[in-house]
Amino acid sequence: MNLTSVIRMLSIILAITALFMLLPLITALYYHETFAFFTFLSTMALISFFSITVLYFTRKSKQNYLSIKDGFLLVTFSWVSASFFGALPFYLSGHIPCFIDAYFETMSGFTTTGATILADIEAMPMSLLFWRSLTHWLGGMGIVVLTVAIFPLLGIGGLKLIKAEAPGPSLDKISPRITQTAKFLWIIYLGLTAGQIILLMTAGMNFFESATHTFGTLATGGFSPKNQSIGHYQSPYIHWIITIFMLSAGVNFSLYFRAFTGKVKSFFTNIEFKAYIMIFLVSAALISMNLYSTGNGNLSDSIRHASFQSASILTTTGYSTQDFEAWPFFSKIILFCLMWIGGCSGSTGGGIKVIRLVVMFKNSLKEMKYLLHPRAISLVRIGDKVVKKDILYSISSFVFLYIVLIIISTAVVASGGNDIATSLSASLATLGNIGPGFGRIGASMNYGYLQGYIKIFLSFVMVAGRLELFTVLILFTPEFWRK
Amino acid sequence: MNLTSVIRMLSIILAITALFMLLPLITALYYHETFAFFTFLSTMALISFFSITVLYFTRKSKQNYLSIKDGFLLVTFSWVSASFFGALPFYLSGHIPCFIDAYFETMSGFTTTGATILADIEAMPMSLLFWRSLTHWLGGMGIVVLTVAIFPLLGIGGLKLIKAEAPGPSLDKISPRITQTAKFLWIIYLGLTAGQIILLMTAGMNFFESATHTFGTLATGGFSPKNQSIGHYQSPYIHWIITIFMLSAGVNFSLYFRAFTGKVKSFFTNIEFKAYIMIFLVSAALISMNLYSTGNGNLSDSIRHASFQSASILTTTGYSTQDFEAWPFFSKIILFCLMWIGGCSGSTGGGIKVIRLVVMFKNSLKEMKYLLHPRAISLVRIGDKVVKKDILYSISSFVFLYIVLIIISTAVVASGGNDIATSLSASLATLGNIGPGFGRIGASMNYGYLQGYIKIFLSFVMVAGRLELFTVLILFTPEFWRK
Repeated sequence: MNLTSVIRMLSIILAITALFMLLPLITALYYHETFAFFTFLSTMALISFFSITVLYFTRKSKQNYLSIKDGFLLVTFSWVSASFFGALPFYLSGHIPCFIDAYFETMSGFTTTGATILADIEAMPMSLLFWRSLTHWLGGMGIVVLTVAIFPLLGIGGLKLIKAEAPGPSLDKISPRITQTAKFLWIIYLGLTAGQIILLMTAGMNFFESATHTFGTLATGGFSPKNQSIGHYQSPYIHWIITIFMLSAGVNFSLYFRAFTGKVKSFFTNIEFKAYIMIFLVSAALISMNLYSTGNGNLSDSIRHASFQSASILTTTGYSTQDFEAWPFFSKIILFCLMWIGGCSGSTGGGIKVIRLVVMFKNSLKEMKYLLHPRAISLVRIGDKVVKKDILYSISSFVFLYIVLIIISTAVVASGGNDIATSLSASLATLGNIGPGFGRIGASMNYGYLQGYIKIFLSFVMVAGRLELFTVLILFTPEFWRK
Repeated sequence: MNLTSVIRMLSIILAITALFMLLPLITALYYHETFAFFTFLSTMALISFFSITVLYFTRKSKQNYLSIKDGFLLVTFSWVSASFFGALPFYLSGHIPCFIDAYFETMSGFTTTGATILADIEAMPMSLLFWRSLTHWLGGMGIVVLTVAIFPLLGIGGLKLIKAEAPGPSLDKISPRITQTAKFLWIIYLGLTAGQIILLMTAGMNFFESATHTFGTLATGGFSPKNQSIGHYQSPYIHWIITIFMLSAGVNFSLYFRAFTGKVKSFFTNIEFKAYIMIFLVSAALISMNLYSTGNGNLSDSIRHASFQSASILTTTGYSTQDFEAWPFFSKIILFCLMWIGGCSGSTGGGIKVIRLVVMFKNSLKEMKYLLHPRAISLVRIGDKVVKKDILYSISSFVFLYIVLIIISTAVVASGGNDIATSLSASLATLGNIGPGFGRIGASMNYGYLQGYIKIFLSFVMVAGRLELFTVLILFTPEFWRK
């Protein structure tokens, strides 16, 4: 391992995080939030001091390529340390007086979870709310990818990083040069951001609201500067814009890249995309019918709220237009099922991811064929490609570890005296980076009342979920630390 | 497919079931339960008429070997039809007035689940209670294995049957001749039965109570003729006897076979056995400490109740000495985790089974090694044997389908208006063949209040769980019905 290089890289990543704090700093200036202004300024100073010190003392270290192990360490600790420093404005400003709470909130931001400990969100200064939403946006495509795109320092190591970093089992090598790829991904991300901000403004939001909600949407995060989330807005137009952009953020970004290069057909041949859309349509239809038939609104309202909430939970965003805790039971159960799924691989969405479930499902069908015809050779295919055994092993260990973590996490949350529905949905909502769940952490509730040790544990669960489990869990194996 | 042969075999199995009804018939005579006596008599007559008719009209069919498909059909339908005819005494006697309830109760018996719809068990006639417990005992090692042992009609087909029938991923070919194997397994089973009955009688139970409780223990079933289950008895001696026999029933029976042939060492080299004992000891210790420290009794009582309940849930028996719903939260969560595990393969226990979890866990560790050293070849080993990729595929599809069924079943139970804790634990308790769960189906409650469609669905879940999922689910694939 090359710890010096890892620490150097980490300090560069933190410096970039500090640079992005210029945006809330400007927000504080604009809204005359003097105290918040100085909070951001001192945090930036602190990070700069830290970074410059590290870079100065390690200036003589050889610029080695990062090894695989270094990549895992770097990716995990960029989230851990960015959340540490990112939490300072909340803590120093006194608006989140307990540091564990501030850390939980920031980790929830950077991991695009959207689980909040705040009871009264609107009581916060605008600049802090802006920073809170910005952590989503930065986390969404990954601080590390950003770093790779802007400072192509990593060379070959970068590919390994992207491998560890990219959400989903495989980010197609859409461009041979990784820096180029990262840049393209960011251009798409910036384009979507600009598009959604403009659309939301035409729908009546001011710039602050449309920017923060766009950050929360495209990162499939879910932080809103409003206490009632998207329910604050009555405009169906706003609801539909956000629904469509949530769904867009849950799609594998390499499909957009292909579409740009003229291969629009990719969307229709991609099995994961088709499964994703089918899951969305079926759940939205079932919930619409249920809401309509139980008198929860007229047909168009039912369709709108059902589509919004299905998209929100499926993509692991976590926004809400209504308190779905009060919805009829059947609708809640559909949402509970969606909590296990998540977005597509290579999207900003969390969860198990559609492609893994498709592969596992096909593997189960293959298993039955094998039982019927033990001598026939049957293979799992995705499109026209055979899924290799290593990929199958990897996916099945992922799904297994995911379930084991859900069960352990349920036990930990329950140890604080929470009922099973709350404990289970808190685990699903944090590991899947969704945000709200059911029971005491439902859409209109928050995580604030949980004990400190549970918040720390759930912060770990969020980062493990965001970094596809292995990146984080591997650090706990003796193998990792063996020379 | 050779449907005629399947139907012939089914009618033989049903005839054997009818033969076993002689035991409750004698019980009815002994306790002067005249109406119940005639109920059993008419059920036996009905089954005999059905069987003889079938055997007569199919007498000219060729005695073909059963194909693999026939094996799956036969195994599944022996449970489905034995539960149908086995439910008749409950229904015809009027003691369970709704046939769906009677069917649920009998399926719960034959699948060794032990989930009951009865609110007042002690109000039932003794003969019906005896039959209820006997279904456990028959189901425990499998009506089909019994058939194989007594009527060696199946030839080679029998091996395939045992493959589909035997609980667990692999029943070692402990004897080259399958009939011989089945006989040995039954001798062990009978030996354990006789042993436990005698021990319980020395502890103060009468013959009826010790026989019924032995049936429930060795089949890891959980039906008790007492409303308070084992909590009816205060004797620590009884509690410990049942604890030890539950644990014994959860062990792979081929280990007993090996021990008989002098290889006692097998127990200590068997990785599944070691993991099973470790899981039991750790959970019993944790619950003991929790019960003791929260003032739920003195140390020896805490250890006794904790050991009993851990063994009961881990082995999927479902007996209880106390209403564990009233235990402190931490203990309940340990039990909730145990609900996912189950006994060893080749035992009468249900659940996912320890060996599958061991393999999945080892596969996950291997995956991390692979991420660190992509070029090194790493394999999953159990003892000194490498787990082949087909076995790994098979186990991972099993675990995946198990979780998917849990989620679907939770949704179905919840659709009847049940909370998530009740719905989830009902699903775990039926698919894992445990019996009681938490919430409205806790240790002192029953399944009686559930809607009919939920009971029918859960009966299906019980048989799917008992027959290792594939045996039942394969019947729903188009591949199965293709010529």
